[in-house]
Amino acid sequence: MNVQQLFDQIKKKGSFLCVGLDTDIQKIPAFLLETTDPVFAFNKEIIDSTSPYTVAYKPNLAFYESLGLSGWNSLEKTVHYIRENYPEIFIIADAKRGDIGNTSAMYAKAFFEKMDFDAITVAPYMGEDSVKPFLAYKGKWVILLALTSNKGAFDFQYIKNLETGEKLFEQVLQTSSTWGNDENMMYVVGATKAEELVGIRKIIPNHFLLVPGVGAQGGSLKEVAEYGLNDNCGLLVNSSRAIIYASNGTDFAKLAGEIALETRNEMFELLKGKGFV
Amino acid sequence: MNVQQLFDQIKKKGSFLCVGLDTDIQKIPAFLLETTDPVFAFNKEIIDSTSPYTVAYKPNLAFYESLGLSGWNSLEKTVHYIRENYPEIFIIADAKRGDIGNTSAMYAKAFFEKMDFDAITVAPYMGEDSVKPFLAYKGKWVILLALTSNKGAFDFQYIKNLETGEKLFEQVLQTSSTWGNDENMMYVVGATKAEELVGIRKIIPNHFLLVPGVGAQGGSLKEVAEYGLNDNCGLLVNSSRAIIYASNGTDFAKLAGEIALETRNEMFELLKGKGFV
Repeated sequence: MNVQQLFDQIKKKGSFLCVGLDTDIQKIPAFLLETTDPVFAFNKEIIDSTSPYTVAYKPNLAFYESLGLSGWNSLEKTVHYIRENYPEIFIIADAKRGDIGNTSAMYAKAFFEKMDFDAITVAPYMGEDSVKPFLAYKGKWVILLALTSNKGAFDFQYIKNLETGEKLFEQVLQTSSTWGNDENMMYVVGATKAEELVGIRKIIPNHFLLVPGVGAQGGSLKEVAEYGLNDNCGLLVNSSRAIIYASNGTDFAKLAGEIALETRNEMFELLKGKGFV
Repeated sequence: MNVQQLFDQIKKKGSFLCVGLDTDIQKIPAFLLETTDPVFAFNKEIIDSTSPYTVAYKPNLAFYESLGLSGWNSLEKTVHYIRENYPEIFIIADAKRGDIGNTSAMYAKAFFEKMDFDAITVAPYMGEDSVKPFLAYKGKWVILLALTSNKGAFDFQYIKNLETGEKLFEQVLQTSSTWGNDENMMYVVGATKAEELVGIRKIIPNHFLLVPGVGAQGGSLKEVAEYGLNDNCGLLVNSSRAIIYASNGTDFAKLAGEIALETRNEMFELLKGKGFV
C-alpha cells in the first residue's frame, strides 16, 4: 500500500485508528474457547465490528507465538481474513524484529511473502543492514522503533550523544531517515510523551508515525494530534486493550465496535480541524 | 540449565562451540527436499553428527518463520529432538525479541514454556521492562545484544554518552548487568572486534558471552579466547554456515561433524592453555 492509498482511506473513514490485535487466550470471552480456533474466532468478530472505523490492524506477534503452532496458524488466518474481506486496510506485524542482513531478509520473507503484511515493526539497535532488507519490497513498510511508550524507554533512548548533543532516539530518526524515505518508513513514537512530537516533527516532518499508548497506557489523543498531524495526516494511533477487551461477554464484538466508533468520532473532529474531512 | 552445568559440559567435551541452525531450505542438500520435513531432517542429521563437539545449538528464528507454519513446526520438532536426545546441550532461540513488559512476558512464554529453550537473544533498545519478564524463569537465560558483528553496529552502538563518555554498548552492559546477574544473563559480542573484549571484560568479568562471527564473518577464535575467556570459560562461540553447509551432498552431516570436530580441537587447546581440560 502506498502513502496516498493510506491517506485516502483515512479521509474516507474519518479515522486514523489502528486496532491492536493483542489477542490473549486468557482474556477472550470464555464461550469462544469451545470453538476450534478461539483466537481466530475472536479476531474475526473484532475485525468485522471495528473495520468501518479502523484504517489499520496490528497483530502483536508475541501473543500468537505464545501458543506455538496453533497461534501461528491463527495469525496466518487473521491476516488472510483481513486481506480478503477488507483489502483497503493496512496490516502491521508488530514483531520488533531486526538482525544481520541475511537474517533480516528471512524475516522480510516471513512477513511480506509468506504472510501478506503491509508493514513490520523493527528495532534499530543493529543499524542499517538490519533494516534495509525490509525496504527492498515495493509497497511494504518498515516501522522503526524510535521513542517507545514504556518505562524502559528512559534507559537508553534519552542518552545524549557526546558529539552532536542529540538524544539516541533523535539520532535514530536522523540516521535511519536516510535509509529509506517517507514512502517506505514510519516510526514508533510513544504517546505518553506527546510534547516530544514537536521536536520529532522537526526531524521527520513527512513520515507517518505509529503511536501506541493512547488509552490503556495513558496518552492523550488530542495532544498527539496537535503535535503530530502533518499534511498527509501522518498518524496511525493504536488502541488495543481498550477496544478488544471492552467486554468479555457475548457482546464483546458489539462493544469493541462502539469503542472504536467513539475513538473514530474523536479522530474525525481532529481531522476536520485540519480540513481533511 | 545453570552456569555450573554449562561449564561442566564445556570441560567434559573440551569445547565451547555453539552451532547455529540457520537452516535455509534453499541451501540444504537437494535430496532432502523429498522428505516430509526437509528442515527437520537436515537439523536432525546435523545435530547427530555435531553433538559430541558442541555445547549449544542456536536455531535462528527468521529461517523457520520464513516458511510459515511448516517452519514453526520444524523448529518445535528440532528443540524437542535436542532435548530428548542430548539433554545436556544448551539451546538458544536466536530471536532478538524485546517489547513492553506484558508483550515480553508472552515471548518468554513462547520460548520458555511452549518450547523448551534455555535462552533467548533479546534486543536492549526498549530497556529494563522489555528484558525483565524473561529473567523471571529460573534456570533460563537472556542473551542481550551488546556489540554486534555486522556493519550496522557502527550506526548506534558506538555513540558516546555525553554524560559518562561511555559508548552505547558499554552503557548497555553496565546498566543491564544490574537487571539480572551472571547466572541468568549473557551478552552477544561480535567476534570481528576481538580487542573490544578487553574493555568488555572490565565491565562484565563473570558473564558468559555469545560470540557470533567466527568463521564466515571473519573473526579469529584465538583472539576471542585470549581476550574473552574467564574463570568459568565464559564463552560460547557460534559457527553456523561454515559447519552446517560444509557440503551439500549426501555427506553433509559427516562433513559438518568433521568441521565441528576441527573447531572443537582448536577450542580444546585453548581450554587446555587455561587449565580447564
